[in-house]
Amino acid sequence: MADGPTINTIAERAGVSIASVSRVLNGLPTRQETVRKVMAAADELGYVRNAVARSLKSRRTHQVAFAMADVGNPAYLAMLRQIQPVLKAAGYRLVLHSTDAVVADEIDVLHSLGERYVDGLIMSPLRVTEAHLQMLAAARTPVVIIGQVPDGTRVDNVRADSRTGVRLAIDHLYALGRRRIAMVNGPLDTVPGAARGAAYREALQDLGLPYDENLVQIGDFYRAEGGRAVAELLARVPDVDALMCANDLIALGALDVLRAAGRRVPQDVAVVGMDDTDLAAASWPSLTSVSLGSAERGKAAAELLLERLQGGDREPRRVTVPPELVIRASTAGEPVGPGGPGAGYGQRTDEGGKA
Amino acid sequence: MADGPTINTIAERAGVSIASVSRVLNGLPTRQETVRKVMAAADELGYVRNAVARSLKSRRTHQVAFAMADVGNPAYLAMLRQIQPVLKAAGYRLVLHSTDAVVADEIDVLHSLGERYVDGLIMSPLRVTEAHLQMLAAARTPVVIIGQVPDGTRVDNVRADSRTGVRLAIDHLYALGRRRIAMVNGPLDTVPGAARGAAYREALQDLGLPYDENLVQIGDFYRAEGGRAVAELLARVPDVDALMCANDLIALGALDVLRAAGRRVPQDVAVVGMDDTDLAAASWPSLTSVSLGSAERGKAAAELLLERLQGGDREPRRVTVPPELVIRASTAGEPVGPGGPGAGYGQRTDEGGKA
Repeated sequence: MADGPTINTIAERAGVSIASVSRVLNGLPTRQETVRKVMAAADELGYVRNAVARSLKSRRTHQVAFAMADVGNPAYLAMLRQIQPVLKAAGYRLVLHSTDAVVADEIDVLHSLGERYVDGLIMSPLRVTEAHLQMLAAARTPVVIIGQVPDGTRVDNVRADSRTGVRLAIDHLYALGRRRIAMVNGPLDTVPGAARGAAYREALQDLGLPYDENLVQIGDFYRAEGGRAVAELLARVPDVDALMCANDLIALGALDVLRAAGRRVPQDVAVVGMDDTDLAAASWPSLTSVSLGSAERGKAAAELLLERLQGGDREPRRVTVPPELVIRASTAGEPVGPGGPGAGYGQRTDEGGKA
Repeated sequence: MADGPTINTIAERAGVSIASVSRVLNGLPTRQETVRKVMAAADELGYVRNAVARSLKSRRTHQVAFAMADVGNPAYLAMLRQIQPVLKAAGYRLVLHSTDAVVADEIDVLHSLGERYVDGLIMSPLRVTEAHLQMLAAARTPVVIIGQVPDGTRVDNVRADSRTGVRLAIDHLYALGRRRIAMVNGPLDTVPGAARGAAYREALQDLGLPYDENLVQIGDFYRAEGGRAVAELLARVPDVDALMCANDLIALGALDVLRAAGRRVPQDVAVVGMDDTDLAAASWPSLTSVSLGSAERGKAAAELLLERLQGGDREPRRVTVPPELVIRASTAGEPVGPGGPGAGYGQRTDEGGKA
């Protein structure tokens, strides 16, 4: 303690342990509050500030990760296209993980945060397990979750409202006179599968339609699996007149199978997708779809993460993006202009593709 | 040098500098040959081998990166679906970069190799600039390039043969009686754009067809841009009877625009895509497409990288994957069975989607 401040004098001044000072000076994961105290103490004692800054800086990777549940689903690409520029403008390189919604792979990504190869993570899990929650609680690296997490989870969180989204779609189909409305869903042990299945049931009840188990078909959130589910459904319930599909990929699979079966869309069977991806506008017939605000969710997640990276500690925040029904040919028959059937709150008509 | 081997004795025995031994023991990037010499010397001198191994190991990230030119193009997803399991089985986590084929972003990824956050990189650049070549020459981390690189570039390299692929497609269209065959291409300053444009010209010459500049339209390798290019082409050359599209996304844009213009596919205009992505089989009409072996290229790239990661030094290797024409409804009119028109070497018929 003779010549200049040491780790001991900084610890004393900051009111933290020597171990904490060491962690801060080595740029190891430390509570932001502790970092601030240590750096303030170091400043006051005239500790060579640049060395601290350099040390901290040297542990920064200027990389951020986005763990996507399905890199082949354009809904995640829509998020990516918003996340990338926000982070790039702030000097971060984005790396992606393709987890295929496999829990073990997601846990591995969360675990790898300890290796500090990224400064932050955005993740979109389809299932949130106890292991996810434990890893999130232990993470010293900022994480933003896109999707539902249990109330009280201390993590920045961006949500869609697929329950209201399903409601908008079912109400639309009902208004078109459809009464045999089937639900083609992904696995019920996923958060979106469970939420969308429950919302379908609720919407039918509120409309006074009977809930018929035969009208519910579970597959997976991919095109081929969606097609297979619809083929099974058609074989079992030939008089179905509308399909509420839990995402656009399932709906595209439905269009493939309906076409092959000689069923006209929408005259015989109306089809609604979910996520309003680029593929919905570009498919033939173009696909009515519930936008869950993928782009807005991506942007919000990137901004929440940036706040953490730049500002440090604050209470976890939650952003919920409202849904919107986008009406196209797969339910409307003919393209309808603004003010046509179904134009109103939470609805939008779209007269063509993006090409 | 009293008790046991030191950095000096190891250096002496290995015939390398003390600095080199230090680098090896610290797991810093070092020529594989030097690593082997140092470890052999350490072994002979009874240096605590595990410490060396641990040191080397501790610098391993067990991560590998795949830098994709367009994460929205299923051709890269087909590569990814092969790369991921090969690397995962060997204990590597895969991270992805979405570069959008922007040269500066690709250079940034190559530069980041110096930060050693991955043990290896697979990259698919559309343009190979002098800067790419310099970074590749300087890289101490194994890199595999999917795509063309100049002859003599010392890097593991996996190639498609799009020249032969274009030839297969043009010959097919010619055999169907088409004589006004247009080329809808991506930018000519990309390696695939240049190769496919040249191949189109050659194929016409060999068939004795005139080369008409009006039949060449340059857009970009995306669906919307492909659609715009085809709209311009149709306005200028209404009598076009076939479109050779430089990838499937362009071809899907072409189908959108032809449908909107009331042109029947293939009766009025036959359409061929390239890459034989999942979207080709699933589109309506289903799309004849030249497979450039995306899956095979991904697998080959992952295996070449693993060899480097596990085995170390060897001469750079090149793998070329042959193309195959997959005939579907967009040229054949009716689905044709095996042995039907066009069945033969380098050709395959496909009777439906994958749903």
